[in-house]
Amino acid sequence: MYPNWILQRAYLTPKRSALTFEGETWNFDQIKIISLNRAYQLASLGINQNSRVAIIGRSRPELVFIIYACMHLKCEMVLLNRKLAKDELAYQIDDAEVNYVLSDDEDQYLLPDETNIISFSTVMEREITPTSIDKEWSIEQTTSIMYTSGTTGFPKGVRQTVGNHQASALASVLNIGLSEEDVWLCAVPLFHISGFSILIRSLLYGNEVKLYEKFDPASAVEDITTGRVTLMSLVAVMLERILNGLEENKIKASPKFKTILAGGGPFPKDYLIRAQKVGISVSQTYGMTETSSQTATLANEDAIRKLGSAGKPLFFNQIKIAGVDKPFVEGEILVRGPHVTPGYIGQFSSKSSTVDGWLHTGDIGYLDDEGYLYVVDRRSDLIISGGENIYPAEIENVLMAHPNIREAGVCGVEDETWGEVPVAFVVIKKETPKSDIIGYCMEHLAKYKVPKEIYIVEKLPRNGSNKLMRRKLKELI
Amino acid sequence: MYPNWILQRAYLTPKRSALTFEGETWNFDQIKIISLNRAYQLASLGINQNSRVAIIGRSRPELVFIIYACMHLKCEMVLLNRKLAKDELAYQIDDAEVNYVLSDDEDQYLLPDETNIISFSTVMEREITPTSIDKEWSIEQTTSIMYTSGTTGFPKGVRQTVGNHQASALASVLNIGLSEEDVWLCAVPLFHISGFSILIRSLLYGNEVKLYEKFDPASAVEDITTGRVTLMSLVAVMLERILNGLEENKIKASPKFKTILAGGGPFPKDYLIRAQKVGISVSQTYGMTETSSQTATLANEDAIRKLGSAGKPLFFNQIKIAGVDKPFVEGEILVRGPHVTPGYIGQFSSKSSTVDGWLHTGDIGYLDDEGYLYVVDRRSDLIISGGENIYPAEIENVLMAHPNIREAGVCGVEDETWGEVPVAFVVIKKETPKSDIIGYCMEHLAKYKVPKEIYIVEKLPRNGSNKLMRRKLKELI
Repeated sequence: MYPNWILQRAYLTPKRSALTFEGETWNFDQIKIISLNRAYQLASLGINQNSRVAIIGRSRPELVFIIYACMHLKCEMVLLNRKLAKDELAYQIDDAEVNYVLSDDEDQYLLPDETNIISFSTVMEREITPTSIDKEWSIEQTTSIMYTSGTTGFPKGVRQTVGNHQASALASVLNIGLSEEDVWLCAVPLFHISGFSILIRSLLYGNEVKLYEKFDPASAVEDITTGRVTLMSLVAVMLERILNGLEENKIKASPKFKTILAGGGPFPKDYLIRAQKVGISVSQTYGMTETSSQTATLANEDAIRKLGSAGKPLFFNQIKIAGVDKPFVEGEILVRGPHVTPGYIGQFSSKSSTVDGWLHTGDIGYLDDEGYLYVVDRRSDLIISGGENIYPAEIENVLMAHPNIREAGVCGVEDETWGEVPVAFVVIKKETPKSDIIGYCMEHLAKYKVPKEIYIVEKLPRNGSNKLMRRKLKELI
Repeated sequence: MYPNWILQRAYLTPKRSALTFEGETWNFDQIKIISLNRAYQLASLGINQNSRVAIIGRSRPELVFIIYACMHLKCEMVLLNRKLAKDELAYQIDDAEVNYVLSDDEDQYLLPDETNIISFSTVMEREITPTSIDKEWSIEQTTSIMYTSGTTGFPKGVRQTVGNHQASALASVLNIGLSEEDVWLCAVPLFHISGFSILIRSLLYGNEVKLYEKFDPASAVEDITTGRVTLMSLVAVMLERILNGLEENKIKASPKFKTILAGGGPFPKDYLIRAQKVGISVSQTYGMTETSSQTATLANEDAIRKLGSAGKPLFFNQIKIAGVDKPFVEGEILVRGPHVTPGYIGQFSSKSSTVDGWLHTGDIGYLDDEGYLYVVDRRSDLIISGGENIYPAEIENVLMAHPNIREAGVCGVEDETWGEVPVAFVVIKKETPKSDIIGYCMEHLAKYKVPKEIYIVEKLPRNGSNKLMRRKLKELI
């Protein structure tokens, strides 16, 4: 048995700052009191440890308190992605067979029309009648359920247990260290594991979370340069904007700022080199919904020597490449450890998440001769052209290193001769002839990898966690 | 399943310093290679995961490598206290029914004559024939067995599992934090949990251990003032010597030095105040063999406000006072958590270590109104005089605050009128009339607590971990 994280943290360090949002700060004792009250209110609506509850809301304290209240009640939370279309939300609500749908008042319009909604204000208007709250949690208990981003096939509801979250946070601390002064900037969605895991770490580590409703590069630059925050999670597109802000203002990160956990796919090397110049340590990570955040992370001490790698597994985790026992040979990445989901809910509940304890990620990568993981690409994005394997990320990396290109996405299109050929979609910083871009690629890539067409677009299709959705690129043609 | 700590740590951070002893340093990769070789040699002698092996040795690298080799082989290690008498060692070797006794070449004379000894050099002279080493460990597996210090009754062999050690190290890091620069000074015995847990932390955290064969106040003072080490575990008598060294030389601890984990019973407040003056943060802890190190520790932020407390439980642990649900009421301290031993070996193997998961420590303490633990005394040391409870530590604290007293121990002696009365044994810094000491006690203690006699002695009886053995005080009369 493990302690209720919220009660234990409030017992151990009641006066430490727990959460800051738009200038207001709550300490762990206040967090406990508010979340307990919210739990009593939810209990009075019938929610208990046998309930499954869908939750949708903006990244604001009200959502955090509702999440913590659900943890007190030990119900299973399905965290809905507020960037989804109504049809997609309807699928999840239906598949998860939830008993309740809790919605931020402002987000009710996002839900399918027939949804039976309990708004956050309905919860908060309930009378507060204390009820018994368990002080202990079991490691097998499901805390959260998140649907995988769905870049392939139907979304699956992934169970994330108390044990998964705890193992993930503990393994992470052995990698990045911990100090009482740590403050985590959370500008990634709480409905994704990247944001949700920041809340978990806060409870286990006793550190403050500075929560942003929306990512705001100017504020992030300020928090990073003043040392107001010491840690941050982000995806590549966010880093690019922060780097721009620092570069334009000719300022550097505070020495107090420790590192950025960089997830959601491989980062262009160009970004990493620019980050170093402005004093930002970037820890490339490899993680997913099924592993409750990071499986591997590149330790700070290896940031330069192994640029582009996602590092080594965190202490309790294992990684291997399917069917491969030699370095530098690509194959499917397999993952094992206490952070790996025990399985799915809904229509995939009978599908086993692992084989012999190993999660088959569908991602392609290799280990180098020192055991560092390099993630080459998502299997579903693989372009096969004339028998040659082409990985879009490799082409995107080259494009994003072009001085006039801000963002790039690459996918395959059908081709009579070669089967498939790559094409590129770019967001530009500055007017540039396409021939110039093609020429740049010719310089840096094998000929068969050079995009057969360049499309200049306003923005790239991204999912709720800002990951590039390569499948949707074709729709831009 | 969890990874073999030694192999995983060497995989993750091979080049980081792991161990330093008398000017020589080994990194984690070197540690791995040496310990594997030693494991192959032990395997060739027949040691495997079905073996139980007693080990005796000085705190030197040879011992560390043998310990890590035994971990590789998954045998159960009985760590023998080299300060024990032959009869006491014979009892443990016999009770544990060990298959092998491994001895530091220099320590063979300590063992009972009939012991079938394998010396460290015998091991090291074996041919190295690689054999299969498990890369995974189960959480239930017993890593080490330590006999409790035996201040009450017959010593019991306490199982400490992979899960116990791991939970202990992880809970500790959530309290004291972690940085790549951490270096742990180990001057406490490796055969006690205080020293052994430093090795475990090193493997899990990836930090360096600076190992001392014997506690040497001058070297410790140098390591602390230069910042060569950042953390240390010790008992009160060691702190006093370090404080003397700092005070005499009018020097302070380096700002890099984080904290001292202070165990082995309550520390005199006077020491803590002096420590603050020389810039040493002291984290009072409460732990024991049965809990694989700390159960509670006073967080740095509370060091001043709660002087004398052992703090709050570490994150995964729980503490309660038997039969008491109010603050400030004394009773037996009960402990629960993943760090608590699953049980004993030998003649006590059928004795349950816990009741409903709670370990009954036999120690007396209370929780204050904020949930801070105050350890009042070992139950076995309780003096009952005229119906009043007297706790020796309280009297010792007063005596040690006397400017001319270095160490003090108190026990009860029989008395016709009162049943028992306390008497004191003191090691003095400077000639002092006994009447002066009595007078000082009269000033600071209730009359019934004032020692009826003061014995000035050369040194106090202490066990291998330098804990005062109050039961042996009477023999000094």
